[in-house]
Amino acid sequence: MRAWEQNIRTVVPYVPGEQPQNADIIKLNTNENPYPPAPGVSRALETLDPDLLRRYPDPAAADLTAAIAGYYGMKTGQVFAGVGSDDVLAMAFLTCFCSTEPILFPDITYSFYDVWAELFRIPYEKQPLDEEFRIRTKDYAKKNGGIIFPNPNAPTGIYKPLSEVEEIVSMHPDVIVIVDEAYIDFGGVSARKLLDKYDNLLIAQTFSKSRSMAGMRIGFLLGNETLIGYINDCKYSFNSYTMSQAAIAAGVESIKDQAYFSRCVQNIIDVREWSKIRFMDLGFECTDSMANFLFVTHKEYPAEQLFEMLKKAGIYVRHFQQPARIRNYLRITIGTKEEMEALFACLEQYVKS
Amino acid sequence: MRAWEQNIRTVVPYVPGEQPQNADIIKLNTNENPYPPAPGVSRALETLDPDLLRRYPDPAAADLTAAIAGYYGMKTGQVFAGVGSDDVLAMAFLTCFCSTEPILFPDITYSFYDVWAELFRIPYEKQPLDEEFRIRTKDYAKKNGGIIFPNPNAPTGIYKPLSEVEEIVSMHPDVIVIVDEAYIDFGGVSARKLLDKYDNLLIAQTFSKSRSMAGMRIGFLLGNETLIGYINDCKYSFNSYTMSQAAIAAGVESIKDQAYFSRCVQNIIDVREWSKIRFMDLGFECTDSMANFLFVTHKEYPAEQLFEMLKKAGIYVRHFQQPARIRNYLRITIGTKEEMEALFACLEQYVKS
Repeated sequence: MRAWEQNIRTVVPYVPGEQPQNADIIKLNTNENPYPPAPGVSRALETLDPDLLRRYPDPAAADLTAAIAGYYGMKTGQVFAGVGSDDVLAMAFLTCFCSTEPILFPDITYSFYDVWAELFRIPYEKQPLDEEFRIRTKDYAKKNGGIIFPNPNAPTGIYKPLSEVEEIVSMHPDVIVIVDEAYIDFGGVSARKLLDKYDNLLIAQTFSKSRSMAGMRIGFLLGNETLIGYINDCKYSFNSYTMSQAAIAAGVESIKDQAYFSRCVQNIIDVREWSKIRFMDLGFECTDSMANFLFVTHKEYPAEQLFEMLKKAGIYVRHFQQPARIRNYLRITIGTKEEMEALFACLEQYVKS
Repeated sequence: MRAWEQNIRTVVPYVPGEQPQNADIIKLNTNENPYPPAPGVSRALETLDPDLLRRYPDPAAADLTAAIAGYYGMKTGQVFAGVGSDDVLAMAFLTCFCSTEPILFPDITYSFYDVWAELFRIPYEKQPLDEEFRIRTKDYAKKNGGIIFPNPNAPTGIYKPLSEVEEIVSMHPDVIVIVDEAYIDFGGVSARKLLDKYDNLLIAQTFSKSRSMAGMRIGFLLGNETLIGYINDCKYSFNSYTMSQAAIAAGVESIKDQAYFSRCVQNIIDVREWSKIRFMDLGFECTDSMANFLFVTHKEYPAEQLFEMLKKAGIYVRHFQQPARIRNYLRITIGTKEEMEALFACLEQYVKS
């Protein structure tokens, strides 16, 4: 060990889903959208004024926050934009979770919540999902320093009805409740309408899934203007310029093309519902996912074995070693119909042979 | 106050230099480069495969780190890339400054060092610059948990000779010394060559100044592979995907165009040296800046008054209210020769009237 290594933070790094370089791979492992972004997005990059690039971007990314606000019929001051939902969620943790009481989130959920809590020294307490992988509302009734959960939850895809979300938000006017709606556009009802009623609600969304822009890194928060103001102050205090001119311009164009967006999302929903039936026909159990992925298990074939078999066949899906309860499940992103047909052909041959 | 506000982090936000929307403004207030980025940068955006945008970027941004490494004759594993130097510096603070001893940095310097230290609860101790605004090597001899300083320093522009940088690095093999070289390309000698000799040295650089890409948000660290590995682990552990596909592609093209880069930088150096003489002719005192800005003061005309006069004339420069010692100084970015001529015409009229 070198002398300076005693002063270094050492962590167990997150292992992201594999990004194979081979274009022939069918990639159903990172919940990317199978369709390209709206045509206007590429046009925005093509026509970006080079003189803009030499200048610092608008730290408020006001063009983009105004476009998002306009789309949802909200005020620009109710939107905070950042470098993907990881960035905006980390900023929300930092700003909103400053109580000495523990924050609450599900035990099986997005894997970065406990990482951010530890990074910012926020006490936390995980709440176990029920036997059907559902978030139990009553677990969130206890005293806490804040709450966060995804809706639909990941990696289960299970959606919590808005009335239950409202129950949690309304129980705790003294803390911020963050609803992480990364997958909400695939059929769930956003908690957006609750913002008029509850000023302790914060919603996170992303351009990475439903808007096919994972490569551009855009996420955003929706909340009341006071709360968004606090988050902006916090962000400005230590990193003023996060969103590039390119991301701002591209994001605005995506928002403008409502028709393209609706069409892509509907395609994915249609393929998902068809895929659920196909999985069940092959003897899989499958949660009623409302996201752009399915969460499946098979009584006879261990998930790890299926994962390896598919990988050899050039089809990448996601398998988690942790937590133990989901070790026998696969998370499979909804691709195009053709990609899913290739997947089912492969599975069919395997489970019937 | 609303119930939840008791649990919110409230901060004094950083006030970035103004970004006027009016194109007629001569903007010498945020150290932006007056020339556009290399032509290949725009071409990279124009030709970016839309299919790349729907996919998550390579979390290691390997195309870009390889390009930077190749340019400097280093290994890819010696380079860490991120969203501007603010992002990579914050990550370096988080990873490298985990001692209970205070880290050391100058009292007049880049304003985010103490912000990150406070954010990550790193103890720190500011070291006063000498009467000529120089960093005193002996102040950094004491026991510490790490050291960071910009070279050239900001907002003074004063460059510390490499032998003195080496003295500081060599004194403390047990802690990381970060040299923030945001402005090094404008005439200073980088500490890069010291990396072969000292494994406790970390260098930060940016595409925002010398590469005219403030709008694209690209910064990077150079260090030994072990140290860069720790920083990568730390980053992956809570935000895997930070650099967009657009930033990676654009950054690679900038690195490729060595001739364009050298020409732009030389222009700025030439205009800077000419500007120093012009300032002194007008009765200003001017540090011997090696950056793309000058740091000036006038015995008869208070800085704030000059700042306001220039602003009214459509010329934006930077004036800091804090720290008190620099309140009578202006930081003036080097623009094109034409922009500087407009500045001097304005100043000349004022100081001679």
